[in-house]
Amino acid sequence: MENLLNNIEEITLMGPGPSCVDPSVLDALSKSTLGHLDPSFIKIMDAIKEQLKTLLHTENQLTIPMSGTGSSGMETAFVNLVEQGDPVLILINGVFGMRMQDVASRLGADVDTLEFEWGTPVVVDEVKAALSKKDYKIVAVVHAETSTGVKNPVPEIGALLKGSNAIYLVDAVTSFGGIEIRLDEWGIDVLYSGTQKCLSCPPGLSPVSFSEKAVDAIKNRQSKVPNWYLDLAMIINYWEGATRAYHHTAPINMLYGLYQALYLILEEGEGAVYKRHMDNHLLLANGLADLGINMLVDESCRLPMLNSVHIPEGADDAGVRSALLKDHQIEIGAGLGPLAGKIWRIGLMGHTARPENVEKLLGALKGIL
Amino acid sequence: MENLLNNIEEITLMGPGPSCVDPSVLDALSKSTLGHLDPSFIKIMDAIKEQLKTLLHTENQLTIPMSGTGSSGMETAFVNLVEQGDPVLILINGVFGMRMQDVASRLGADVDTLEFEWGTPVVVDEVKAALSKKDYKIVAVVHAETSTGVKNPVPEIGALLKGSNAIYLVDAVTSFGGIEIRLDEWGIDVLYSGTQKCLSCPPGLSPVSFSEKAVDAIKNRQSKVPNWYLDLAMIINYWEGATRAYHHTAPINMLYGLYQALYLILEEGEGAVYKRHMDNHLLLANGLADLGINMLVDESCRLPMLNSVHIPEGADDAGVRSALLKDHQIEIGAGLGPLAGKIWRIGLMGHTARPENVEKLLGALKGIL
Repeated sequence: MENLLNNIEEITLMGPGPSCVDPSVLDALSKSTLGHLDPSFIKIMDAIKEQLKTLLHTENQLTIPMSGTGSSGMETAFVNLVEQGDPVLILINGVFGMRMQDVASRLGADVDTLEFEWGTPVVVDEVKAALSKKDYKIVAVVHAETSTGVKNPVPEIGALLKGSNAIYLVDAVTSFGGIEIRLDEWGIDVLYSGTQKCLSCPPGLSPVSFSEKAVDAIKNRQSKVPNWYLDLAMIINYWEGATRAYHHTAPINMLYGLYQALYLILEEGEGAVYKRHMDNHLLLANGLADLGINMLVDESCRLPMLNSVHIPEGADDAGVRSALLKDHQIEIGAGLGPLAGKIWRIGLMGHTARPENVEKLLGALKGIL
Repeated sequence: MENLLNNIEEITLMGPGPSCVDPSVLDALSKSTLGHLDPSFIKIMDAIKEQLKTLLHTENQLTIPMSGTGSSGMETAFVNLVEQGDPVLILINGVFGMRMQDVASRLGADVDTLEFEWGTPVVVDEVKAALSKKDYKIVAVVHAETSTGVKNPVPEIGALLKGSNAIYLVDAVTSFGGIEIRLDEWGIDVLYSGTQKCLSCPPGLSPVSFSEKAVDAIKNRQSKVPNWYLDLAMIINYWEGATRAYHHTAPINMLYGLYQALYLILEEGEGAVYKRHMDNHLLLANGLADLGINMLVDESCRLPMLNSVHIPEGADDAGVRSALLKDHQIEIGAGLGPLAGKIWRIGLMGHTARPENVEKLLGALKGIL
């Protein structure tokens, strides 16, 4: 019988995620599986919580990886907090803000949105105006819009919300591990991320963090969380305390991978990791400029790890991406929604953010175009 | 910095899951990560669907692994089908039947239950009587009750439901890969499983299969599925068709592992795999009898892969399990719910079901007791 796994090529992953994975993280995945209640495994769980708290700059006790991909983190954030008719404000300037709106609406929230042009950031003054008109239970924003490459003003929105009753909910799927996040200082109450972006671990887990205020809101719900799998009130009892109560079987080997991925970031040093992302972003942006390829997003709010570029006139969108993949073993991403066919998305996330990858891509693009 | 992954010991996993993992499956996990829309990866996705269909004996097009552990499969099954007030009958004789009741109730189903003593099977005549009194949208049962070691009469209940409008929903988390499942022949409409039991892949994925009747029920919903992450109407568009639409980033490396785990079962041969489970179960049961340790479940409905045994008089439940783990690197499971402190659960799932493991456990138990 043919085994398809023998044909897997090594691809330089320069799309919107997954990103390249360090060999030691791949090795970690293949360590011997332990039981989900084994004391040695519980030590690893405890260590992961501490690693996440350190990198997010938070004291939140409820800081754990959920057993699903980044989108399950979004689901976790809303399903644990939203009850029928709760007023929620969602700030939208890309696909992932829209996804938040869909997730919250399905759960019965009364969703208001503020929308901003794709490729531009959320405007803080407009948020301020909206907050002066209505009290919201939740205000939600995406830190790094993976669909456009825009960094939203998360600390500034947090400052607006200080002292209010609103729960501040932030999508950090693409930002975590690539740019600084100071969860407590910025007043974030709920944050979720994914492993396959700047953490450079394969997809499959979603780190989340909930403040005491958010945990209190969960405890004071009138109705049960309408999602057994993601119910934090039960999951806490597996991740915390002296006796760990079985909820569901944790994805053991994926958690080994996350531990190792976080270990590498802490070993390199948080500051050095962010600098590496920025340095390689600048190297890429300059190199692309030399090829006549322009960035979509204004420099003031550009993400280092997700570079949206205008497809040069005359270039065949799918053809170029396909040639990069087939002839150069490089993956880059297509545009989504209104930006489909107009932009490419070039990721420099985690282990991908290295000069040799930037140079490889620039050389390949030069040859193709 | 200390790295906890260096301390991971190889444990013989003889509990209720996770089970031992073949080295080639661990190797598969550490293959180079591909993009979730890479044509080579889509080939692997297509192959996994075919592997699952072959082993489940089904033509169901919607046969895919969900991006979460077995419990996310249970959530998927109910959340896609249940709407407010839908009448659901759940047959309960252990923890996982109770979990179904909780999951369905949270989603607003009108749940009736038939309960049977833990350690005994569902009684088909009682189900027949219940079905004659009321029309149900869903009838749900656990094939292999992991909490007790009982095999429920899934084909017989399916025969009762033939020709009715009810959707027949079966939990095959522990049965799939260890005993035969003939999905189409038995009239099952919705089935979910987990990877970490008899498929012998680490935890993290949940294979599911939905019949045409179940898919039609999803298409005819009045309300949106109140769970974006598990909404099959969207997920289908990623797993089927010529253009694969991004929904969430699939857990790439875990899917490599599942592919390899299913590959091994197909290579060994389905019949040989089931026989290996039964042979090792008999070897264990006989060896335990020699030690004066008795099975909880009657021979007529005993599962080969999950052996519940009475804790011998005078033996210290936690002490024995701890000695097995620390001194012999063997994990077995404790009892749950009303059976806590009364039974041990000895798993012979997938790669664990080998004579050398049975002999190792028997020898260790003999020494400790």
